[in-house]
Amino acid sequence: MRTINELVQDHIRNLEPYTPGFQPTGDGWIKLNTNELPYAPPEEIRKAIHEESTRLARYPSPTSQELREVLAKFYQVKVDQVIIGNGSDDLLNLLVRAFGGAGKQTLETFPSYSLYPVLTAIAAGDIKSIQFGTDFALPVEQLIESKSEILFLTSPNAPTGVRFPLDQIRELAKRFDGVLVIDEAYAEFAEGSALPLLEEFDHVVITRTFSKAYGLAGLRVGYALASPEVINILDRVRDSYNVNRLSQAGAASAIQSQEYYISVINEVKQTRERTREALLGVGWKVYPSEANFLFAEPVDTSGKKGADVAAALYQFLINAKILVRYFPKHPLTESYLRISIGSPSEMERFIEEVKKWQNSE
Amino acid sequence: MRTINELVQDHIRNLEPYTPGFQPTGDGWIKLNTNELPYAPPEEIRKAIHEESTRLARYPSPTSQELREVLAKFYQVKVDQVIIGNGSDDLLNLLVRAFGGAGKQTLETFPSYSLYPVLTAIAAGDIKSIQFGTDFALPVEQLIESKSEILFLTSPNAPTGVRFPLDQIRELAKRFDGVLVIDEAYAEFAEGSALPLLEEFDHVVITRTFSKAYGLAGLRVGYALASPEVINILDRVRDSYNVNRLSQAGAASAIQSQEYYISVINEVKQTRERTREALLGVGWKVYPSEANFLFAEPVDTSGKKGADVAAALYQFLINAKILVRYFPKHPLTESYLRISIGSPSEMERFIEEVKKWQNSE
Repeated sequence: MRTINELVQDHIRNLEPYTPGFQPTGDGWIKLNTNELPYAPPEEIRKAIHEESTRLARYPSPTSQELREVLAKFYQVKVDQVIIGNGSDDLLNLLVRAFGGAGKQTLETFPSYSLYPVLTAIAAGDIKSIQFGTDFALPVEQLIESKSEILFLTSPNAPTGVRFPLDQIRELAKRFDGVLVIDEAYAEFAEGSALPLLEEFDHVVITRTFSKAYGLAGLRVGYALASPEVINILDRVRDSYNVNRLSQAGAASAIQSQEYYISVINEVKQTRERTREALLGVGWKVYPSEANFLFAEPVDTSGKKGADVAAALYQFLINAKILVRYFPKHPLTESYLRISIGSPSEMERFIEEVKKWQNSE
Repeated sequence: MRTINELVQDHIRNLEPYTPGFQPTGDGWIKLNTNELPYAPPEEIRKAIHEESTRLARYPSPTSQELREVLAKFYQVKVDQVIIGNGSDDLLNLLVRAFGGAGKQTLETFPSYSLYPVLTAIAAGDIKSIQFGTDFALPVEQLIESKSEILFLTSPNAPTGVRFPLDQIRELAKRFDGVLVIDEAYAEFAEGSALPLLEEFDHVVITRTFSKAYGLAGLRVGYALASPEVINILDRVRDSYNVNRLSQAGAASAIQSQEYYISVINEVKQTRERTREALLGVGWKVYPSEANFLFAEPVDTSGKKGADVAAALYQFLINAKILVRYFPKHPLTESYLRISIGSPSEMERFIEEVKKWQNSE
């Protein structure tokens, strides 16, 4: 008889799983590590969910039909250009399973969302990572020359927050011989989007989420917009009932609450710019961000920066019960911290602690 | 440039997706086609969900930790023997991805849950189906001889509702050289379960769902119980945040509401037996069921049975706004209807319509 270890697929046996950002369970934390919105959902959304909860004995719409229709109307696309996922992670997974996987190559820029290589590994595919330079500019020509079946581009990019110019993405779309996925998880905080490319190209996919700007990370809803041909393929690989009733109802209600979200998003952007000014003011390097986080290189009072400095501040902040994200594994990220934008008072606390740290050095 | 059709994986291009049971949108239907519970969830569960909805801005526990702990306590197993899925379909999918898929063989009895071949096809695996005889007895020796990496056994079985004897499943577990998955979606309605095998075998997996006996099909929560070794492997293939906050909270609350469910499940079982008696009374063949549905062969007043008779009654019931499930594609199922157990009054209506149909023949 074969053991479990012998029975498991070779490429799964030694898989390194994705590491989600730390979720503290105790109270009193200022959580600036997973780019969540610092506000609880408005009452309308809670009410829509509560009403839907009377119908839980029945299976949900397998295609999330009503939510698809709401989104199609919102983006002025056809309903068959929309697919709903259990978070946008679900859709990234389906994209890899359909177009990547065994015998295929996934392409990504590096560093970006560290889930892409994990999804590729689970599907037994190869991954090719094109490293950014220190300017984090889009390496258009290198990407085009890569001979890959699928390319994940995060724009605004994580962890920098920088959005890539539409002209450059269009150039990629024109010449990249594969499916081009633009992961716009943070697009609601940005000053532009790749949405216009949907009309021009059948092989462009835009993924979005309710986890960031809509403040519904706990609800797990994402969506993709693409040509009907691509959506039809993803639909075949999808779990039949991949999004539950409450998530469908809550997300549809969120799309109807635009007035609320426009004001919340504006507040986050203002807080982001104030925080950026403060960090520039104490001598840090901070990338210009169009997302709800800042990627910033700490400098201590003696003017020192680098991996040790970033790691020391990261630990100092944890001791002060402030969580930010630190990626120590790569030269391009090891001197930086990624700081999610919390509420104005949370960011004031954060800046205070940064100053305390500088003075304690 | 390659077209979308050229870019998609070969085995996905011509995939036949799973067909979920029809979900009517209008009012007035008696829905006996997807084995749902005919009762809305109790207020405690709705309340738990409503309270949790204030926390939606934050990501859920990636491992559904609290729910795992609740289930571990309920079943008196270790927490690392439990994994939570976005419906048990999610877990069946992970099982195929980890142990089936390309270069491996999935084994199933046929007919059973038609999702197993679809999941196998998406993962580019082979499937071997061992056909039941008309007695629907478990073909233990044939299964053991199959040389497969993973075996899905539904017990109580769908579509018959018959539970396989524990001794036979134990014999399978002893001698089947692969992962043995016992899909116990309907076990709460049954007089026994394969749970005792968890202590005896590392390669036995039991999957369960909140969609049937707990009446939470709209919430999408399932779980698997197995050895820590198997759970650890599934955890690596799982989406990092595969179950949302509301589903975790609602399912945990359901486990705490045992008193309510014991009484509801008893009612369903009584209704099932009354319905079975009524159908036997009008001359039908009805398998003895330990699930919340009956698999029954209609007979018209002239004593005729067969595919035409079943199809005619299926259509007659639809015209009366009663939905049951009909599987016309296989000789073992084409003469039968699968009838979910609804509320007592719904089943009375169903029996009335059956009698009307007989008299109209």
